[in-house]
Amino acid sequence: MAIENPFYTPEVHGPYELYSLGDFPLDEGGVLPDLQLAYTTVGTLNEARDNAILIPTWYSGTHEVMQRVYVGPERALDPNRYFIIIVNQIGNGLSSSPHNVDGAHAGPNFPKVRISDDVRAQERLVRELFGIERLALVVGGSMGAQQVWEWAVRFPEMVRRAAPIAGTAQNTPHDFLYTQNLIDAITHDPGWNNGAYADPSEVVSGLRLHGRFAAVMGWSTEWFKQEHWRRTGDFATLEDFQREFTEGYHEPLDPNSLLSMAWKWQRSDVARNTDGDLQAALGRITATVFAMPISQDMFFPPRDVAYEVAMVPHGELRVIESIDGHMGLMATDPGYLPQVEVNLRELLAIER
Amino acid sequence: MAIENPFYTPEVHGPYELYSLGDFPLDEGGVLPDLQLAYTTVGTLNEARDNAILIPTWYSGTHEVMQRVYVGPERALDPNRYFIIIVNQIGNGLSSSPHNVDGAHAGPNFPKVRISDDVRAQERLVRELFGIERLALVVGGSMGAQQVWEWAVRFPEMVRRAAPIAGTAQNTPHDFLYTQNLIDAITHDPGWNNGAYADPSEVVSGLRLHGRFAAVMGWSTEWFKQEHWRRTGDFATLEDFQREFTEGYHEPLDPNSLLSMAWKWQRSDVARNTDGDLQAALGRITATVFAMPISQDMFFPPRDVAYEVAMVPHGELRVIESIDGHMGLMATDPGYLPQVEVNLRELLAIER
Repeated sequence: MAIENPFYTPEVHGPYELYSLGDFPLDEGGVLPDLQLAYTTVGTLNEARDNAILIPTWYSGTHEVMQRVYVGPERALDPNRYFIIIVNQIGNGLSSSPHNVDGAHAGPNFPKVRISDDVRAQERLVRELFGIERLALVVGGSMGAQQVWEWAVRFPEMVRRAAPIAGTAQNTPHDFLYTQNLIDAITHDPGWNNGAYADPSEVVSGLRLHGRFAAVMGWSTEWFKQEHWRRTGDFATLEDFQREFTEGYHEPLDPNSLLSMAWKWQRSDVARNTDGDLQAALGRITATVFAMPISQDMFFPPRDVAYEVAMVPHGELRVIESIDGHMGLMATDPGYLPQVEVNLRELLAIER
Repeated sequence: MAIENPFYTPEVHGPYELYSLGDFPLDEGGVLPDLQLAYTTVGTLNEARDNAILIPTWYSGTHEVMQRVYVGPERALDPNRYFIIIVNQIGNGLSSSPHNVDGAHAGPNFPKVRISDDVRAQERLVRELFGIERLALVVGGSMGAQQVWEWAVRFPEMVRRAAPIAGTAQNTPHDFLYTQNLIDAITHDPGWNNGAYADPSEVVSGLRLHGRFAAVMGWSTEWFKQEHWRRTGDFATLEDFQREFTEGYHEPLDPNSLLSMAWKWQRSDVARNTDGDLQAALGRITATVFAMPISQDMFFPPRDVAYEVAMVPHGELRVIESIDGHMGLMATDPGYLPQVEVNLRELLAIER
């Protein structure tokens, strides 16, 4: 049975549309009945249908943060020039998710969804709804980057350019274990009750712990030392930041939604397209790829991304320097976006 | 009331002596009645009493691991040449600790102990029991390094040389939050029961989570990617390693013991000796200091140690290269000990 959650509404995240894909077969088996993708668009699709940019979302994020941080007039992702589609990943609370579906697939019975399911669903949305055969760019951060990589490998003919930010094509064992800690923070809370809670507030202790786990690896050691949390809002002390920002951000989220995404995050792997051969998978990419890890990222470190992008025929490593680490994705570091903008402009100017 | 715990015995950790300091006043206030330090010695104190080396212990460790990994004939820490004293930190399960004291200070009522309390107690042991006025070297890793730093600042006239490995003089905010996660892993377990469990096995779920969280920051991303856990024992899969090593290591530990040490770890700060002035504190050090952070350490990164050792008059930064990260302290990387040995030999040869 669906749970009413005032957080997952247009009032909080801004307007969005729903695209129904009907009964959607999943890579792990089974079917998600009446799969709905929540998306929004900005700008206008041109007649040639060749100015479309697709942006998938990251863990716990929605289209709202991607639009607010990354899209705008006179920006690289300029809606006056491009038709920008931002799609919420399955399980994120706005697209079909444990708390908003009914019946046999609700809550703890929500089926296992993979990055590849998201990308297959997004491909249908892009093609069926907008008649787009080729995307000028696919760009996203973190789990959004995982979807970008999958797009470039699975549908090479449809992806002209790809910009995975702070994310890998094949999740690493360390990242798997890190994400497991996020999962454990929730599932160790007795209030979680194997997913059968009546209201997310019963799991508030686990959600807060989840947030505190995420913060320690999310920012960087130096970010905390230099007290850059002061830049993220009006916090008098680190304790205030932790309570109001770190815990406050996570408290309204649906625990089963986070668990659905975390399971997906752990298993992201483009080599599933090529019988486990990562080099073969990345070698299939025809897009021009600018891979942008963040220098101080503690769980998607530049080393791991450098290893992968070296196998991409037209791939380049573009490290974004920031002591904000992975959370730099939210552009809390004023030096972050200018670097991303320069790279995206250069990438979009490449006419290969 | 004391809890029988078969883990904290000579059968597991090898023989040790107890030195009683009587009622010991603590820096946080109050008194620890009949404080016992568990220690062992190797080698012989010479007539001049100037060949003594002191080794304090790290979080969850005892004298056993320090002796096994770092001490031996023809090693830098050679018992044929030096009189080596290994002292268990307060709260570690062998020295006075929550589970082994009786009465009003038992279990959850064990008083707050600081690094400075350990060092004051160790100074008495060294002086009263052995008549040593000056130590040839104080060396330790992690929380052991925190004690080394405190020794060099608090008793400069007694410390001729100091070698803090993988630890800082002043704990960082990031490290505080990381340690808080370790604490939370235990205290969020309902079995912990505010410390009033009857047996540590009631907290096994929290202890396992504590272990899994420690592992993610304890090793490095690259260590997991290269599957170096295969070097730590006979494990067929990463899951086996996690269950048998990561969880298995933590399961027999006393939860309140870990919490006592974690609280201490979080608040390690030599600047408490100088009204918060870190530069003044480190400037007091007369010892020759070789500070040895481990290159891939995720919570005591070289950057933080470099910042501190630059303020030490006769201090040098000696980074130990290892992808094993912080856990490299256990010498799982065959390239680790040779680097430490070279530095310790060079340090011990300096006659300033």
